[in-house]
Amino acid sequence: MQNCDRLWRNARLATMAGEGLGLIDDGLVAVRDGRIVFAGTAVEAPRLSAVDVIDCEGRWITPGLIDCHTHLIFGGDRAREFELRLAGASYEEIARAGGGIVSTMHATRAASEDALVTAALPRLDALIAEGVTTVEVKSGYGLQCESELRMLRAARRLGGERPVRIATTFLGAHAVPPEHRDDADGFMAVVCDEMLPAIAAEGLADAVDAFCESIAFSPAQVERIFAAAAAYGLPVKLHAEQLSNLGGASLAARYGALSADHLEYLDNAGITAMAAAGTVATLLPGAYYFMRETKLPPVEGLRVAGVPIALATDCNPGTSPLTSLLLVLNMGATLFRLTVEECLLGVTRNAAVALGLDHEIGTLEAGKACDLAIWDIEQPAELVYRMGFNPLHARIWRGR
Amino acid sequence: MQNCDRLWRNARLATMAGEGLGLIDDGLVAVRDGRIVFAGTAVEAPRLSAVDVIDCEGRWITPGLIDCHTHLIFGGDRAREFELRLAGASYEEIARAGGGIVSTMHATRAASEDALVTAALPRLDALIAEGVTTVEVKSGYGLQCESELRMLRAARRLGGERPVRIATTFLGAHAVPPEHRDDADGFMAVVCDEMLPAIAAEGLADAVDAFCESIAFSPAQVERIFAAAAAYGLPVKLHAEQLSNLGGASLAARYGALSADHLEYLDNAGITAMAAAGTVATLLPGAYYFMRETKLPPVEGLRVAGVPIALATDCNPGTSPLTSLLLVLNMGATLFRLTVEECLLGVTRNAAVALGLDHEIGTLEAGKACDLAIWDIEQPAELVYRMGFNPLHARIWRGR
Ligand SMILES: [Zn+2]
Ligand SMILES: [Zn+2]
Repeated sequence: MQNCDRLWRNARLATMAGEGLGLIDDGLVAVRDGRIVFAGTAVEAPRLSAVDVIDCEGRWITPGLIDCHTHLIFGGDRAREFELRLAGASYEEIARAGGGIVSTMHATRAASEDALVTAALPRLDALIAEGVTTVEVKSGYGLQCESELRMLRAARRLGGERPVRIATTFLGAHAVPPEHRDDADGFMAVVCDEMLPAIAAEGLADAVDAFCESIAFSPAQVERIFAAAAAYGLPVKLHAEQLSNLGGASLAARYGALSADHLEYLDNAGITAMAAAGTVATLLPGAYYFMRETKLPPVEGLRVAGVPIALATDCNPGTSPLTSLLLVLNMGATLFRLTVEECLLGVTRNAAVALGLDHEIGTLEAGKACDLAIWDIEQPAELVYRMGFNPLHARIWRGR
Repeated sequence: MQNCDRLWRNARLATMAGEGLGLIDDGLVAVRDGRIVFAGTAVEAPRLSAVDVIDCEGRWITPGLIDCHTHLIFGGDRAREFELRLAGASYEEIARAGGGIVSTMHATRAASEDALVTAALPRLDALIAEGVTTVEVKSGYGLQCESELRMLRAARRLGGERPVRIATTFLGAHAVPPEHRDDADGFMAVVCDEMLPAIAAEGLADAVDAFCESIAFSPAQVERIFAAAAAYGLPVKLHAEQLSNLGGASLAARYGALSADHLEYLDNAGITAMAAAGTVATLLPGAYYFMRETKLPPVEGLRVAGVPIALATDCNPGTSPLTSLLLVLNMGATLFRLTVEECLLGVTRNAAVALGLDHEIGTLEAGKACDLAIWDIEQPAELVYRMGFNPLHARIWRGR
């Protein structure tokens, strides 16, 4: 007889392990000290005793959802800019009215760490309410050393404010700030030689990211921050091939990146490189939708090559003011034609790989953290099919 | 000194009356016996006394939102069909697997009135949670007399189960059921001569609707049900110009329709006719999105002609499994390029007109029902700009 703390019985499981969604009919999950000790069919379970036995009445259990690409920490919002654009204002008019990423940069620089945390919590709570148990959060609106550090400290603090795992990513190379206009190389030197060492010293980042695009940084500049990250033993990711094809995905794969993200303009060479490196393709349909893009990411190519696909909100004030991972599931299917299975793996197992946390989360398997989402649904497809509906029955983080 | 039951002070108002959104800065709303006795600036308010005075701390108040086009009552769901289609199944395969509108018809016919109510309540609750205080609900999945009556009775009952106003619409002419295959005229005779009299006798419908499309009913067939509705003194609406242009909007306008809905293929003649008749254009971006349509409704033409525009979820299991009116606001702006003002008027003032209820609801004006939504936002544009976030602070229905 094995002792455990808590036991969920009479459940249907989508373990996300093994074949497909890893569906199990008469399922049981047991936790001890925050870790899964058993997840599988009741008939194959060892003899288990638990103080707390929960009858799930046939509900479905999935791993807690993972939002593996967000910019959750920022100051201000861009609702006014959105309104002006719909009313027909030009980009110049919006810039004159203080719009664009620079407006978010100013608002973020002006915000205290407390203010950044306070502003992010309602966004985090919206994700949590849908069964999200892990959230990646990037810096990248400070664009000067102290502000980038402050963003990452605020991101780390979110994990103390709520029962959620936060994975932080340093994205100093998000945009060239006005004080370095026409000197992206000079700014990249600040990112690599000033910001990154300070962040590494404080242990503030779990990964390093950059934006590889003609309006941001060239592959050569990105390579500089990737090399610097490697020197600090930090894994890398990349915003790549969103608006054009600069070969960012191949570059990312060469550096063993955890993921390359967006990827609408990804070509076959990039797909091949990602497949060989095991780099996850993180697709962000919210930004595609919000920006009314028409170029679809090469889903069939990724599928054939066996590149793992993740989905995320890309929550940010400029191009994806989105705080529903369930809506992302629907967008992945409706807009990108991902299957139900691909969508659900994209916010669980593959999202964990995209964060380098697949040893810890993303599937219902013994040894992993006991992060669960329990759903009032009759079949997993409902999580993808419906829009603007939250069937979460309960959310469990580390076994409680 | 005027007595009232309750008073909301220190609020910002979007009254939706007069110019634009009817913005008022230092606003106050007072209610007596469920009706607004004053809504306006505090300085212009009469002397009011109330037992219950609520400090809104600067929050925004809008009229309770109105979802003026839903198919909220139905049996079953179509998640499995959605999954099969994404996995590459053909329409025949899906039909063989029991998919399509006929599957919803069978599930609806098989459901008791209680079961229909129970199934609809979570959908209704999702709308209510976002500040919706009035919901239109159509029949149209029974397609035989007793089942259509049962759907409408279930719809009426929703208003007893929750603090919400339900407007019912008889949509017997939604599709030709299998037992009348190749005999749409024969089915229309049943709709007009059997169903409608029974529904009118029981007072089950507030309006009559039909689906004018090559895959449903011809303009001549629609005209028959419109004439029958007129004989019973019931106003009409029409699903028109969704997939092709059959001149449905002009036909609807000729019968003084409250609204014509969908309208992607609406032409100038239809716009002119609607403008002259005061028929509301109800746009349904959720169905456009979910079905991956590419033909946009003629928004600029409607705007120039002064046709009032409403927005609704079209909540239904086949083409818009959507229960977030806030998401519809974003889709109206993002997909259809409606302005923030057009979107917000579309779920308040103009939605009330689309239901023939503009004397009762849709604006914050003395004499109207005191249905309010109180929001934790800094500007109305946030309601349109954000995706998958609900900033509702409180919802008031008939003053409480
Ligand atoms: Zn991003
Ligand atoms: Zn409809």
